[in-house]
Amino acid sequence: MPQLSARGASMPASPIRKLVPYAVQSKAAGKRVFHLNIGQPDIKSPKAAMDAIRNHDIDVLAYSHSAGNQSYRDKLSLYYQKHGMQLTAEDMLVTTGGSEALSFAMGSILDPGEEIIIPEPYYANYMGFATALGAVVRPVVSRIEDDFALPPISHLEALIGPKTRAILLCNPGNPTGYLYSKDELESVAALAIKHDIFIIADEVYREFVYDGHQHHSVLNLRGLEQHAILIDSVSKRYSMCGARIGLMASKNKALMATAMKFAQARLSPPTFAQIAAEAALDTPDSYFEDVVTEYRQRRNKVISRLNAMDGVTCPEPKGAFYCLAQLPVVDADHFCQWMLESFDHQGDTVMMAPASGFYTHAELGKHQVRVAYVLNLTDLDSAMDALEAGLKAYPHTL
Amino acid sequence: MPQLSARGASMPASPIRKLVPYAVQSKAAGKRVFHLNIGQPDIKSPKAAMDAIRNHDIDVLAYSHSAGNQSYRDKLSLYYQKHGMQLTAEDMLVTTGGSEALSFAMGSILDPGEEIIIPEPYYANYMGFATALGAVVRPVVSRIEDDFALPPISHLEALIGPKTRAILLCNPGNPTGYLYSKDELESVAALAIKHDIFIIADEVYREFVYDGHQHHSVLNLRGLEQHAILIDSVSKRYSMCGARIGLMASKNKALMATAMKFAQARLSPPTFAQIAAEAALDTPDSYFEDVVTEYRQRRNKVISRLNAMDGVTCPEPKGAFYCLAQLPVVDADHFCQWMLESFDHQGDTVMMAPASGFYTHAELGKHQVRVAYVLNLTDLDSAMDALEAGLKAYPHTL
Repeated sequence: MPQLSARGASMPASPIRKLVPYAVQSKAAGKRVFHLNIGQPDIKSPKAAMDAIRNHDIDVLAYSHSAGNQSYRDKLSLYYQKHGMQLTAEDMLVTTGGSEALSFAMGSILDPGEEIIIPEPYYANYMGFATALGAVVRPVVSRIEDDFALPPISHLEALIGPKTRAILLCNPGNPTGYLYSKDELESVAALAIKHDIFIIADEVYREFVYDGHQHHSVLNLRGLEQHAILIDSVSKRYSMCGARIGLMASKNKALMATAMKFAQARLSPPTFAQIAAEAALDTPDSYFEDVVTEYRQRRNKVISRLNAMDGVTCPEPKGAFYCLAQLPVVDADHFCQWMLESFDHQGDTVMMAPASGFYTHAELGKHQVRVAYVLNLTDLDSAMDALEAGLKAYPHTL
Repeated sequence: MPQLSARGASMPASPIRKLVPYAVQSKAAGKRVFHLNIGQPDIKSPKAAMDAIRNHDIDVLAYSHSAGNQSYRDKLSLYYQKHGMQLTAEDMLVTTGGSEALSFAMGSILDPGEEIIIPEPYYANYMGFATALGAVVRPVVSRIEDDFALPPISHLEALIGPKTRAILLCNPGNPTGYLYSKDELESVAALAIKHDIFIIADEVYREFVYDGHQHHSVLNLRGLEQHAILIDSVSKRYSMCGARIGLMASKNKALMATAMKFAQARLSPPTFAQIAAEAALDTPDSYFEDVVTEYRQRRNKVISRLNAMDGVTCPEPKGAFYCLAQLPVVDADHFCQWMLESFDHQGDTVMMAPASGFYTHAELGKHQVRVAYVLNLTDLDSAMDALEAGLKAYPHTL
């Protein structure tokens, strides 16, 4: 048997998908399973985007430009302008999902054994992309007691050493929904400039901000032009997760030229999806207003239901469509599996993501779950009913 | 200025695209530029595939399965059966182009500093994927005098050491068009088994085989089940380069489970393109018969024209749609640039890929160019007229 790579052995298994067999079993047993485990919204994709695909007139489905279609990047610069961000088509590289943007960004700045600092809990696949490249994630703990705010800047600075190349922020955050303030971002920016390292900012949830709060982009931080890398995606913005269109952008020309070499090696991002993504830019503001109103109601529902349960605490997120709740259970991994395998409430059960997979220090997430509020209010109520009943029935509570 | 990675600095720049600015200049100057530099066919994509996209009824463009849609993989197993290859849906991982399949395969078996043996000249991006992963390409020379046949097996074996993890073959070959015989493949298989290393076979040109020759897949070599990795793609088969749908397949379950972790990290391959690729499987055999007839005529045209030019030799390829020609020029890089920048024949010129980029030992390709016969016969004739006149006019011939 030929030898597999240590890299492959270290790749984290998906923290969410390991529960899938139990969910399938549950469904087979006639249970209704509410999927609050993944960020797959039920929101319809913009009609303009779906129609553009229906109306395509392609005869030869050719490679596109390695950096993505010029027309799409030109139009994207107008989108960013609307959000107060100045980006030209030359500052952008269209990627196959935000995933590929993260891989290109990390590959351009990290060598094997080099380090990237990420506040935890963090989007689990950051670890996957770093591991694939042989790079090392240095986590800095955000505490639920602080609503998952930025950890003290001294905690971040303490992790900076000769191998540190970047700090990665997700803003608003998956899995916490935390929205970084301008002050927080400026303190990280000062740190990055002081130590001459990059900030990678995953801002794919930019539009999903509630209660009149404002999203601040790293691209707008003064003096950070050579250090800021933007990661973006159409997946959540337009409920087009299956398109697989993302973006890496920066004003740092040497960085973008390096990333372009990775882009040329894989030839081009998918052509049909670029057509859909370009058409989606015509989506009217009212679409987002409706979506944000819907998500705010869902968030309010879930947060109030969760915090009303015995022993449960959950900070109110200001953005994205996730929340991270502390449950009075001995082991959230086991509880989530038990909910699928051994429990139902009037035929209903709920699938959540155990939070251990969002931490490098897995034990920090031992009593926590991520809830994605991606279902309608009625379903969310039923899901919360099932969770509440499950917590009462579960034999291994704290 | 923050530090970029050594990995990024080592990434090869695209050997083909560096000529693009000169091609653009040429066109701007009113010249007709025949693009024989890249494998972008002019053949129409199957109507069934393009129609399936037009008729989509997607409301929410959701993530697909990380391994690709089950329905597509099921139907693919019938396609492979037709080619005498036994693959179930579980042996397959649908990827974003053959590019991603190569990255996943290499990532699953190579750690930084570990080695993969590849006969050169080879598809330039193999080096890009290996470099991105910190792995090392060990080239073994295929000679134009031998029509780019497999080098003596002793030459391959001489490169095998403790860090060797795989041999990579492209069959039929890009850039040479060489089709490996069953004997050649069996000798590589015996070597792989003896040293317990993988064989990665890039078989994306499977259908493009001429003169009644037969393509042999590594998947059908006896005793190689745990060692064989298939790389495939719809890009060339259906002239759907822009779909970005490829495949990694193997009977080695531990390998596929490892590759699946890379696949889950990037979530899923593009949804629209999977729909097109699945529909393309209904393409009738007559499509391929027509396409192969067309390419055979093109090959005959190009090969006979090239070999009739003073000082030019070009082996006749049995597969794919490339040939690698030896030209009587001091430096093919300069000649290709000169053809675009400083020459035209009755307003025509031709863009070719200098072969240096297909060799690790770049000097071996110094007098060679790759010609992709991806244009119609009339255009190919005009392109060859321009090349012939260019060789006569070029001041730096041997």
